Amino acid sequence: MANSEVITKAKRAKAAAIKMGTMSTNVKNAALDAIAKAIEKNSSDILAANKIDIEAGEKKDMSRALLDRLALDGKRIKGMIEGLAVVKKLPDPIGEIIAEWKLPNGLKIKKVRVPLGVIGIIYESRPNVTVDAASLCLKAGNCTILRGGSDAINSNKALAKIISEAAYETGIPEGAIELIEDTNRDAVKELLAQREYIDVVIPRGGKGLIQMVVTTSSIPAIETGEGNCHAYVEKSADLKMANDIVINAKCSRPSVCNAIETLLVDEAIAAKFLPEVLKQLKDKDVEIRGCKKTCKIFKEAKAATEKDWETEFLSLILAVKVVSGVDEAIEHINKYGTKHSETIITKDNKAAAKFKANIDSAAVYTNASTRFTDGFEFGFGAEIGISTQKLHARGPMGLPELTSYKYEIEGTGQVR
Amino acid sequence: MANSEVITKAKRAKAAAIKMGTMSTNVKNAALDAIAKAIEKNSSDILAANKIDIEAGEKKDMSRALLDRLALDGKRIKGMIEGLAVVKKLPDPIGEIIAEWKLPNGLKIKKVRVPLGVIGIIYESRPNVTVDAASLCLKAGNCTILRGGSDAINSNKALAKIISEAAYETGIPEGAIELIEDTNRDAVKELLAQREYIDVVIPRGGKGLIQMVVTTSSIPAIETGEGNCHAYVEKSADLKMANDIVINAKCSRPSVCNAIETLLVDEAIAAKFLPEVLKQLKDKDVEIRGCKKTCKIFKEAKAATEKDWETEFLSLILAVKVVSGVDEAIEHINKYGTKHSETIITKDNKAAAKFKANIDSAAVYTNASTRFTDGFEFGFGAEIGISTQKLHARGPMGLPELTSYKYEIEGTGQVR
Repeated sequence: MANSEVITKAKRAKAAAIKMGTMSTNVKNAALDAIAKAIEKNSSDILAANKIDIEAGEKKDMSRALLDRLALDGKRIKGMIEGLAVVKKLPDPIGEIIAEWKLPNGLKIKKVRVPLGVIGIIYESRPNVTVDAASLCLKAGNCTILRGGSDAINSNKALAKIISEAAYETGIPEGAIELIEDTNRDAVKELLAQREYIDVVIPRGGKGLIQMVVTTSSIPAIETGEGNCHAYVEKSADLKMANDIVINAKCSRPSVCNAIETLLVDEAIAAKFLPEVLKQLKDKDVEIRGCKKTCKIFKEAKAATEKDWETEFLSLILAVKVVSGVDEAIEHINKYGTKHSETIITKDNKAAAKFKANIDSAAVYTNASTRFTDGFEFGFGAEIGISTQKLHARGPMGLPELTSYKYEIEGTGQVR
Repeated sequence: MANSEVITKAKRAKAAAIKMGTMSTNVKNAALDAIAKAIEKNSSDILAANKIDIEAGEKKDMSRALLDRLALDGKRIKGMIEGLAVVKKLPDPIGEIIAEWKLPNGLKIKKVRVPLGVIGIIYESRPNVTVDAASLCLKAGNCTILRGGSDAINSNKALAKIISEAAYETGIPEGAIELIEDTNRDAVKELLAQREYIDVVIPRGGKGLIQMVVTTSSIPAIETGEGNCHAYVEKSADLKMANDIVINAKCSRPSVCNAIETLLVDEAIAAKFLPEVLKQLKDKDVEIRGCKKTCKIFKEAKAATEKDWETEFLSLILAVKVVSGVDEAIEHINKYGTKHSETIITKDNKAAAKFKANIDSAAVYTNASTRFTDGFEFGFGAEIGISTQKLHARGPMGLPELTSYKYEIEGTGQVR
């Protein structure tokens, strides 16, 4: 165990972390350029490795959706290269003086932004995460330990080799980008116990993976991504606007975490609002699972179960509930939601204010689609994930969320 | 299990958290006043309860140091009351707009400071922590679940009853301050598994307690307090200044986390610097455990073992090592330190810059005692602890470190 791959690589990353934290913006940007060029130059190797993963996936009857996530092609490789250019353009957060002040005794205190150190990324079989995560962590001065899903192992090995070699040739310290090649589940458990060497772990994937990581890890972890999001149409709402927002929030991309899973409607307007919007959703192949009142108003709805209220469907299913007003809407969301994104459609400022103050979620909208909860949409330029916990970072996490700070204190001999 | 004290109280705190987060500054300050008055009024009850704890402690031969931490008297109760007045005066962090911006599509985004929610405080047998932690969490709009050491159970029960009753009478929601009365160790384990109801746990105590909490908890935790701090005397140092800083950092209060445990000295000045400073330390009853070179220079030193370099003595013991220069000092500190506080004494700006950039600790000093790492000294007005991890908060944690944020987004019908 003491010389396992996990421990060897975790130690190597830790040893590289201090040097990595002092890399200049120029060196980090040059590394991102070099990585992009190396990916372009070696794209046929990457595609060949990916083909092995895809064939193995087909053999074991992997679902079409999973195969699609796993597959690489020229366009996706181009996407990786473009992503690297975007990260290069982002301002370097490291070294920023967040605050500075002087104490009465003359001590000068500076609060300076520094990297987190070594970040473990645990993810599923999406090879593009390998490049995304490594490049964002690198730009923020961190070392990265990547542990992707076993079905993408050949793709990840090819990518990690290309990325790390290109980075090291540019002056990034060896050990700054490590891929755990052991596809055994025990390797993840071992990784999550390396508190001595790894500063933070971030899971990226479905609910099962995220819950496993956050409950197993002895390393500080950031819970990301699970989104049981809600739209609440309050009785004063502009119903045309409400209609557009609900359709957009459910249908524009149902497989992502910021899509809505439950629609809540004020009982005062339910009979007026629901028939039209539910018909439109039905026409877009959305399955409606309604409360008793909804089923009365819209005969094609199936009866919703308790489980439906708490489920992130990530597909064309919508749970619908008629509520007595903003209080019941708030109570429902705080009970069943995942603290991700919720929206109220209303013209009543009091109702909007109550909703904003009392909803315990990362992003609370008034009169807009929940689909905007995203690092790019928020103007962060990139994102490593969307935090649904309250410690450290909440909502979309960009480069600053991949950093910590330290206090630098200058004295002239002060003692206490 | 489902109806255990821990789960019942965790649920109650969670239910109170949303309302607690919207309490006005006036109500929170009135509650702090009421708590102070209630403690004063009921001080004889508190002292009587504390007497039971002290007598039980004496019966089981508790050490003098532990008995001292456990004991309350008129002066300490006055200290609690003064502490409440200090917290009342601190600015309320909740509702602060940390940032706001407008997107090209017209969406207005506000990043607003909100409470963490429910905070679990796990601590040892120091009854004053009960008041400290509850009042700081309250001012930052959080609910608190307190779990103190079993030896202080009677004191804590008396205090928690007085605090919570006074707070609830002022309008703080019931459930906002809960004490776990079950002194069984399993209750702590159960508490650390209530991820659904508790947002964050903060351990306050010794190394064993802290390590147990951070490695066991499935709830996000903040590692606090362990301080294996270092002073490094670089060869260009003003030796008189170095002498004063070392004496202060070791002797002014050896039992606290920001006292130094190891002195590193440049070999170029070791023979000149060490004899005088080590003699002074010896005169102050400090036991010196030195490396080979130190023992040669100062005959009264004991030989240091590997374990001494990694130990937080919290007492009148100092490990001393002669190093070849700033690089070896940095390497030693990053290897053996606990990421708390370190100081370099030097006149060489380059050496100081290298030390600051490469030391991976919360507070890095130049020419000052490490004893200043403290929320009060930093000007925060109070502190809940000193974080030695890099996620969420680092160094002294005041009220803002007991908060999170959410994004409030206002639209006019925007869809994506």
